[in-house]
Amino acid sequence: MKLRPLIRVCLSTVLIPQFKVEDYVVVVIDILRATTSFAVALHRGASEVRPVPSLRACRALRKQGYLTAAERGAQKVPGFDFGNSPYDFLEADLQGKKLAITTTNGTKALWAVRGAKKVVTGAFVNMSALLHWLRQQDEPILLVCAGWKDQVNMEDTLFAGAVATELEGDFRVNDDATLIAMSLYQLAEHRKKYYLEHSAHFDRLVELGMQQDVKYCLRRDLHPVLPFYRDGTLVDLLSVQV
Amino acid sequence: MKLRPLIRVCLSTVLIPQFKVEDYVVVVIDILRATTSFAVALHRGASEVRPVPSLRACRALRKQGYLTAAERGAQKVPGFDFGNSPYDFLEADLQGKKLAITTTNGTKALWAVRGAKKVVTGAFVNMSALLHWLRQQDEPILLVCAGWKDQVNMEDTLFAGAVATELEGDFRVNDDATLIAMSLYQLAEHRKKYYLEHSAHFDRLVELGMQQDVKYCLRRDLHPVLPFYRDGTLVDLLSVQV
Repeated sequence: MKLRPLIRVCLSTVLIPQFKVEDYVVVVIDILRATTSFAVALHRGASEVRPVPSLRACRALRKQGYLTAAERGAQKVPGFDFGNSPYDFLEADLQGKKLAITTTNGTKALWAVRGAKKVVTGAFVNMSALLHWLRQQDEPILLVCAGWKDQVNMEDTLFAGAVATELEGDFRVNDDATLIAMSLYQLAEHRKKYYLEHSAHFDRLVELGMQQDVKYCLRRDLHPVLPFYRDGTLVDLLSVQV
Repeated sequence: MKLRPLIRVCLSTVLIPQFKVEDYVVVVIDILRATTSFAVALHRGASEVRPVPSLRACRALRKQGYLTAAERGAQKVPGFDFGNSPYDFLEADLQGKKLAITTTNGTKALWAVRGAKKVVTGAFVNMSALLHWLRQQDEPILLVCAGWKDQVNMEDTLFAGAVATELEGDFRVNDDATLIAMSLYQLAEHRKKYYLEHSAHFDRLVELGMQQDVKYCLRRDLHPVLPFYRDGTLVDLLSVQV
């Protein structure tokens, strides 16, 4: 009998070197707000979303026809088209447009796993599309929490625990980080909002007036897309395949 | 009103550089089995317990009058006085003796936090002594999980969560790693054995025939000592102060 492939959780980008990413299909998770915004922008019709680490890199892409998104201290940076809030993209006409977006944790995580078999991004807003696709992969899966400033965070761990719990029938769990994330999800399942409201990043975002963003990032299955990372950019694998 | 000091959890030795250890009283945690064995040996009367990273370093201390403890692959290494099982020290006459003991994760964690305000080690077997002493510290506390081969593990996270939960009234919690450890403890409190039996390290130890050791490492308050780290070695702060 063939053994089911493993599913594992990496709790912080700092821990990525502990994994041989070449052996895995990797899901990068940065719920507040990068991987949520990626899903929104692709669902709104963007032909690609290119995460970049700096304002300078983002600005440079403008000259190549990209729309640009940049935020610092919760404010849209002057000279860019959008901030980084999911709401910015919900209301925008992105059909067929290329979008460059600055993120720190998310870009760092994507770069660190670039040698993986395949790389996609996940968030609550595209969770079912992600689960459906992962079930079709007959490979070990690594769920990478981008975290916040290299620290383990609540919202990414909770999402990783949710995904591992949903996939437990099809994949094998045999390490403690994954069990910890799944336990957390088990505890939080019916109290997700309560849990996240006690997370450090939540407080930070609320202080910055972004409570609406946080609520949005916790809603499930609003955007049935699958952001697939190749050549440094994300495309929606579901619409590309159609 | 004076703010209560912080209590934080570092989930793996790899994450230690994210903390400015100079600002903290640090507790190193390596439940299976290093910090458990340290407590046993000190309670049995050892005048000091010196953790060293290699067989060679351990052997060298023999010439300086140390008893030596070393294990590889669950077997006592020939030429050393003890293995690393808590049971080895329970049955030994250690009164006034110096003991050198090889550990990998534990030694690495102790070395990595050597710049902290104070460094002690904790385990379930000396938990109440630890809690009592920590409550007297008017400094931020960092609970460092040694983990296993740099990965986050269940037993150390659970213990950190237990300590943070017990101290929550006297200290402040404001980061996600600590909340995650506390949630795990909350879920596992009445099912600690169940939880640890599902941990990866547990399986490994049971396969090696060390189920008794694991059970011992989960018992609480058998050894009311406080292993205090200075000049590369551990002494029992409680008997030194008397």
